[in-house]
Formats: sequence, C-alpha cells, structure tokens
Amino acid sequence: MSSMTWNETVSYEKTVEKWCVFEVTVNGPADGNPFTDIEVRGTFTGKNEKKTVDGFYDGDGVYKLRFMPSFEGEYVFEGSLVRVGAAGADRAKDETADEICTFAGSFTATAPSEGNHGPVRVANTYYFAYEDGTPYRSLGTTCYVWNLQSEELQEKTLQTLKENAFNKIRFCVFPKHYDYNFNEPQSYPFEGTPCDSSQITKENFMEYNGCAPGNDWDFTRFNPEHFRHIEKRICDLMALGIEADLIVMHPYDRWGFSMMDAESDDRYWKYVLARFSAYRNVWWSLANEYDLFRAKTLEDWERYARIICERDPYGHLRSIHNCRTYYDYSRPWVTHCSVQRTDLYKSAELVNEWRERYRKPVVLDEIAYEGNIQHGWGNISGKEMTRRFWEAFCRGGYPGHGETYLHPEGILWWSHGGELHGESPARIKFLAQIMEETPGIGVEPFDGGWDVVACRAVGNGIAPRKDYFLYYYSFMRPSFREFYFDDTTEYEAEVIDTWEMTVKKCGTYKGKFRIDLPGKEYMAIRIRKA
Amino acid sequence: MSSMTWNETVSYEKTVEKWCVFEVTVNGPADGNPFTDIEVRGTFTGKNEKKTVDGFYDGDGVYKLRFMPSFEGEYVFEGSLVRVGAAGADRAKDETADEICTFAGSFTATAPSEGNHGPVRVANTYYFAYEDGTPYRSLGTTCYVWNLQSEELQEKTLQTLKENAFNKIRFCVFPKHYDYNFNEPQSYPFEGTPCDSSQITKENFMEYNGCAPGNDWDFTRFNPEHFRHIEKRICDLMALGIEADLIVMHPYDRWGFSMMDAESDDRYWKYVLARFSAYRNVWWSLANEYDLFRAKTLEDWERYARIICERDPYGHLRSIHNCRTYYDYSRPWVTHCSVQRTDLYKSAELVNEWRERYRKPVVLDEIAYEGNIQHGWGNISGKEMTRRFWEAFCRGGYPGHGETYLHPEGILWWSHGGELHGESPARIKFLAQIMEETPGIGVEPFDGGWDVVACRAVGNGIAPRKDYFLYYYSFMRPSFREFYFDDTTEYEAEVIDTWEMTVKKCGTYKGKFRIDLPGKEYMAIRIRKA
Repeated sequence: MSSMTWNETVSYEKTVEKWCVFEVTVNGPADGNPFTDIEVRGTFTGKNEKKTVDGFYDGDGVYKLRFMPSFEGEYVFEGSLVRVGAAGADRAKDETADEICTFAGSFTATAPSEGNHGPVRVANTYYFAYEDGTPYRSLGTTCYVWNLQSEELQEKTLQTLKENAFNKIRFCVFPKHYDYNFNEPQSYPFEGTPCDSSQITKENFMEYNGCAPGNDWDFTRFNPEHFRHIEKRICDLMALGIEADLIVMHPYDRWGFSMMDAESDDRYWKYVLARFSAYRNVWWSLANEYDLFRAKTLEDWERYARIICERDPYGHLRSIHNCRTYYDYSRPWVTHCSVQRTDLYKSAELVNEWRERYRKPVVLDEIAYEGNIQHGWGNISGKEMTRRFWEAFCRGGYPGHGETYLHPEGILWWSHGGELHGESPARIKFLAQIMEETPGIGVEPFDGGWDVVACRAVGNGIAPRKDYFLYYYSFMRPSFREFYFDDTTEYEAEVIDTWEMTVKKCGTYKGKFRIDLPGKEYMAIRIRKA
Repeated sequence: MSSMTWNETVSYEKTVEKWCVFEVTVNGPADGNPFTDIEVRGTFTGKNEKKTVDGFYDGDGVYKLRFMPSFEGEYVFEGSLVRVGAAGADRAKDETADEICTFAGSFTATAPSEGNHGPVRVANTYYFAYEDGTPYRSLGTTCYVWNLQSEELQEKTLQTLKENAFNKIRFCVFPKHYDYNFNEPQSYPFEGTPCDSSQITKENFMEYNGCAPGNDWDFTRFNPEHFRHIEKRICDLMALGIEADLIVMHPYDRWGFSMMDAESDDRYWKYVLARFSAYRNVWWSLANEYDLFRAKTLEDWERYARIICERDPYGHLRSIHNCRTYYDYSRPWVTHCSVQRTDLYKSAELVNEWRERYRKPVVLDEIAYEGNIQHGWGNISGKEMTRRFWEAFCRGGYPGHGETYLHPEGILWWSHGGELHGESPARIKFLAQIMEETPGIGVEPFDGGWDVVACRAVGNGIAPRKDYFLYYYSFMRPSFREFYFDDTTEYEAEVIDTWEMTVKKCGTYKGKFRIDLPGKEYMAIRIRKA
C-alpha cells in the first residue's frame, strides 16, 4: 500500500430509498492525474443482488462510488482505490496496479416513496413500464442544452416542465454549436480553454464546425463541476417524474468533443457511466444524429454500446438517434427505437412499420418541432404537432415534442428551454390524460379500416383486450362513423376533440351503431366497455 | 343494292369551324336492328389530311357521320351505309356485306373562333397544350353523373362551372350505383328496363352491386337519346372551355353495364367512339377504378385501348383510373397518368416519382375530396385540398378536385354536380391565375432543398429557363428564407399567401438575399426575372 498523504475519510448515509442513489465519498490522492491514474471500484451486496460498480474522481482529492439498490433491505459494500498507471489501462491488464486504500460499510435500502417507481424498462415488447410495474407512457420533449444556459433560464425550464405533461426530456452532456446556438456554455466537460467564438455569426458558423482552431483541452482531465451540474438537473427532473434521456455525443460542435480519439471517447464514456448510472431516470442516447459525425464509424458506436452494457449495472434504456439513415435498431443492445422521421410528410404514420420491423418500443424523438424558424424541421403548427402525437400514440408509439419559435433573445425551447409559446403543449397534456385513462400497458394498432387510425388496449396476455378501443380520424372530417361489434357487450362511446380538448359522452351501444361527429379535423371516438 | 323503302335524304352544313364537329345526316332503313345490321362509314379529304371515320345509328332511321377537321380549307367526303348482317361483324370479314346507299359532298373548314384552340395534346413529355400551341394547364374536377340528374340540376352545375376555374371534368357515360347514388338516372344507354330499386338503402346497396336481379336490357340496341344528351353536355362544356374527361366504364353498377360480355363491350366502345370522337374536348378515361371490376381482365382493358386507338381518328388523350393498384401507365396507348392516390397521407407529394417513372403528364384525378362524409376519401378540409393542389402544381403535375359535403337533399358535387360549398374552389381559381402567369408550358420541380417544394418554368428547349422560380412551403411555416442566385440577374420577389389569395411584392434582389415570411402555413415565394 502507498503511503497516504491525504486525510483519509469515508462517508456515506446509513439509509437510502430503493431506486435512489447511495453514495460513498472517499478522500484520496489529488496528485498526478487522478482521472487516469486511479480507479475506484466497489461491490454492493444485498439479499437479492450483488453488483460491482465503477466509481469516479470528483476533483479536489474526492472519489465517489454510487449505487442504486433495486431491493429493500440490508446491504454491505466494500471498495478500493487502486493506482493503475498514467495510461488508465484496465486493472486486469495492468501489472503495476497498486491498491491505495480499501473501505467497507453497510446501509439499509428503504421502501420507495410516492412517485418513485424505479427505472423504466421495456415491457411486453413494444411498451414501457417502471420497474414496479406501473406503465410508463412516454411523452418526450427536447431541450438540447437547457442545462448549459444561465441558472435563471434553467429554473424557468424546470418550472415549465412542472406545468406540462412531458415525462422525458432529451438533452446533451456536451455543449452545442449550431444555428441559434453560438453562445458559450456555462461550463465545459474538460479542463482547458475553448476556441475564440467572438466572430461566429449565422452566416459563418458552419466554418467552425468540428474542432475549430484555438481549442486547448486536456481530454484526460474532466471538469467535475460540469458533470455535478448535470447530476443536479437529473435529480431535479427525477423530482418532477421526468426521465433524463442523456445525449452523450452529438455532432454540432466547434470544440472538438465530437472528434476525440478512441481512447478519449472510451474514457469519457466510462466517466459518464460511473457518474450517472445510479440515477434511476437516466436513459442512454449514444448520439444525436449519429450519421452526421465526421469521424465516427459504425464500429465506434458498437464499441460505445459495449462499454455501456459492461459498465451500466442497471441496464438503463439504450438507443441512438439518426438524421437521414436509421440505425439498425434490431441490434441486441438497442432497447427501443429513437427515431427522427426521414420523410417530410410521413412521420408518426410509420409507427406500425417500425414496430413490425424492429419489435421494440418506437419512440419518435424528432417528428419536427412546432415553430416558425426557417428550417423545415422547426416550423410546423401546433395542430400538426398535435396530430402527429395522436397518430403516434394510436399506432402504439411514443411521440416527442420540441419547439422552435423565433425569440427576441434567441431563446428557443428546442435548445435552451425557458418558456413554451406554442399551442401543442396544452394538447399534449390533454393526450397524457387520455393515455392515463387507458387500461393496461398501452395500446396496439389494429385494422379498423383504411381511413382511420384504430387501436385497442393491450393487456399482459396474448389475446387482445376487448374493453377499450380508440379511433382517431387525423385530418379527416367524417360527420359520422358506423361501428359493428360482433357480441352482446355494452359499450360506452365518447367523442374526443383532440384540439379543443373535450370529451363528450354519446351514450351506450351494442352491436351495430352509428356515432355522429362534428365534421371537423382531429376528432377521435373512444369506445369502452360499459 | 337493296330496294329502298325509306325517304333517302343526306343533309349537312356547307361550312364548319376547324376543330368543330362536321356532321352528315343520312336517312336509311329503320327495320331489323340498325345498330348491328348496318355500318356507316365515310372518308373525309382535305388538302392536309384524309380520314376514314365510323358513323352510327341515331334511331328513327337516322344515321350520322361526324368529322372534326384539323385544318382550314376545302374538304370533300364520300360515305356509305352497308348492311353487314345481324351479328354486326366487321365488314371486311363479312361476305354478306351489301351496300345500301352512298353519299358524297363537300364543305369548307373555316378559321377557329376565339376560345377554340383544338384538342389537348401531350406536349414536352410532361405537359399539355392545345393543338394550336396554347398551354393547357389542367385543373380538373369530378361530377361522376352530373349529366344524369334533373335538367335543373345540370344547368346549375354548368353555372357553377362557369363561375369557377376548372377546365376539365370527369363524368360517366353509364349511371352510377353507390352510396349517395341510389336514384335512377334520367336515361339509360340501352333499350330495356332496369331492376327494381325501390328497396335500396345505404345499408343494403352493396347487395345490389354488379347486375341486380330484374334488369332486362338489350345490349344490341342503344338508346340514342342517352348519348345525344351527353353530346349536348360535351358541347356545353366546350363552350365553357372545359375538357370532358369521359369515364366510359365504371364498376359502381346495379344494371349490369359493368358485366357485359366482350362482344357487347366492344359494340359499346365502337358506338361511343363513333359518336363522341369528333368533339375536340373529349378525353377517354377507359374506366374509373378499373381494378374494382368483378369481371374484367387486363386483356379486356388492353383490348378496349386497341379499339380506341383504331377508331378514334383524332388521337384524343387516353388513360385509365385506378383504385388500389396503379395501371401500368408506361403502356404505349396511355397518354397520361390518371392517378388516384393510394396512400392516405401522401398524394400530390409523389408527383415527382410518377413523372420519373412514367415520363408522361401526371394528372391527379383523385387526391381525396373536400367534404365531411364518413368516407376517408371524401372528408378533407379546403385547406388540405388547396395544399394538395399546390403540391401537385409545383411538382409539375395537374391536380383534380372533388367535393363531398353532406347535403339535405343528397346532392353532392362529386356525383351530382349542383353548387359548390367548400373553401378550396376559390383558392383553385387563384391558383389558376398563378398558373396563367407562368411563362412557358408549365413548371418542373428542382431540388431547392429538402424542406421546400421548388419549381421553375419550362421552356421548349432543353436548358432550364432562369426567369421564373416558385417555392412552396406547404404546411411548413418559415419566418424567412434565404436565397442565392449565382449570377448578376435582377429578380423580383413576391410572397404568395395561397390560402388568403394575396400576392405581395417584396422588391428587387440579386445574389444572396433573404425574404421574410409571416410564419404561416401555405405560403409561397415567387421569384421572377425583373
């Protein structure tokens, strides 16, 4: 054992809620480069599980080890700090490995409090449920770098999220360089200094793309504050019941973070995994628009995926988001499709095809944004956004929102968060309520005719449930529709105006019957067992 | 020569306008079955053309021979009535052929009057022009059996057409049996009596489909009044500058007209061709929804096409309209695509694909109808209809309209004509004006970016014209767009609100410039050489 020149302390709480973060803090050496020279690892053992997890260096001689218990009851743990040499090589291969200190302890995992349902899992092939079995009906939004804006703006974003129905948000670990995104972030992920951005304009920003001249980073030294801040936001989201769909890599970059070498990429992935895995609401999005990276290959993406599978002990959801070319979502490590529509006209309408093709949950992470900017992906109406949400839901998929209205101070929800200005969020809230009233885990599409989007509730068994049917008419405007149920069941029918957000009871029916509609767009009929 | 027991007279006018109908009327025998027993034929010779055409029996011992001169100047003609036997076999094969009478004469074809541009032809692969070279910018509508409604309603239809911009109308020779179409027509095409229709309801009408019990028709005897009336309507349309896109066969039938044997079909086709070919504004639509016929094969359709090509001396436009499966529009006899969209969401958006595939004009004869009936093909909004029109036009195609609003007396424009109630016709009129202001023969799509529908004017040469560009933003709502023209040309830019029907001049620009837009749907930018 090395001589200790630091004030060795090990601290942790004696209890933690199941599915919350148990954290062990250990003081250790601050000399050299602790990010690469020292590995922290620990094993947590309870009655029902035993997990070995990676810790990380948090700066100032502080090392941390995090664990999320999946069961209630007593746990013991033991861990160590090990010197692995400057290269940060794997301990198993490193003959110079040298144990600096060991530590051990115990704690109790208590019952989850209200609103804590555990991590989200894939359930019944196409759906999601929290680990406690509660259905998770995903309604996402995107604010790429809300977490790197001013504190005031971030608080505003949280307030807006609180007032809305989104239960997933996509955002980045790295800062973003793109149209409407030229400012410097509040912090950087690495030690060093960024390139000069004072001359960037909307005309020349593409010239800075990738790694602009003047960047000076040490990719072997993380900036713990940057990551601590993300953790704070993950916790804020957790408190709101919102999943944090972390975009770990993205190509809109002038700092060179999208062009690091493989060794630096892998080190970054391991650091991210060691820090964030214990947060139950984290999802891994390997990349946004993976196909726009200049210097990554399919082998790179598959390697990152392998690192996640090896180092995330909790099996958080994993996917990768495309621009023009879909990733092969049938790869075993992909838990769900994270689709950006590639057709200007058809997006949510293709959910059925994707379900059949990939046999996984279909999450529509980009189906264009409500707004009025110049780009075609950022200027659809609230009505069209709402229509796409209903199409996606009724086809058994999970739609995602974003908003890009021109703003006098350049604050666009899609990237910066802040306030929402559009017409779709209120309707998405209404849809959330309709989804909540669906029995079972979700809905599955069925052939209700060529000119209707029809779905029924899905149970846990194989036979379709016959107690809940929803018929969505999209942009069509029938003045009535006829139904025929081949049994003696009594059904209650309701007419839903998805835009006006009203539900009107029609009455009780059986056999052959007709439901009148107002001949407007965006109507649905809900038929439930009386 | 047979002994004549009739009062032989031959009558005709001494002058006719070029591209109008020259008609020779001959009295002949009325005994036996003149429809099958006697053939009328004549040859017309002018300085620039010589054409042999079929005549037809018009009832009451009257035979007619029609000819449309394509040139001005003197013409001579000679013709004959020939007895061909009861089977109506071709004269060449019939050894019992017996000349009843011959006749001859001459006339002068005079200059066309204003508004008479001749028949419509395919021009420059994807476009249409009248024979005199005037571009024909097709904007169609559909009133399937307007011609078989009450006289009053037909007059109202003509009045409505006069007030609108449609320059093509699709309608049927046969009556129609379908939802909202249970009434008996004003006349039938054959001698005989129809099945009893008194018990038909919207619930049971499909049970009558095809040839319902009780029909009693003599398919060897046409009802000339039925055809004379269609001719009257063709002339009324001609006077309004509207092309008559005749649907010669269709499957919505309870009288058995869609299920005649091949011999009866061919006789019918020949009669139709002999009667209607000389009207310059006639187009041949072999069928509506050819793929819904119970008892027709591809060979049948190809045989009818062969008959048209043989017996229409003027080469009128020919196509066939699908329901679920496109006909192979690349067949040589097909002059243009007559498309019904087969995708609920994408219709006009596919024009580019169809152009590339078939290399013929793309006419969108059904892209759903504005209305509010229960069927998905008949309940889109005026906005969506207008959007599809602009998509089709800007992609180098020709859109078609139809309207299906519920009506207290069951009068739906789509089938019965009458009045228009929708919001799209006024916008189609506005589009007609925009089309009229396009130089050249039409527009061709070009790649103006993934999120805009861009087109430019097409000239007669191979090189693209650089004097007219149109950018349509469909449902997208950009607040501005940027342009770059790589030359020193000065352009005038205008913002077109396709829904509000306004054109706003922006100014004169060259090189790189930006045009502001109101961030609304359905906007276009027109850029023309200053």
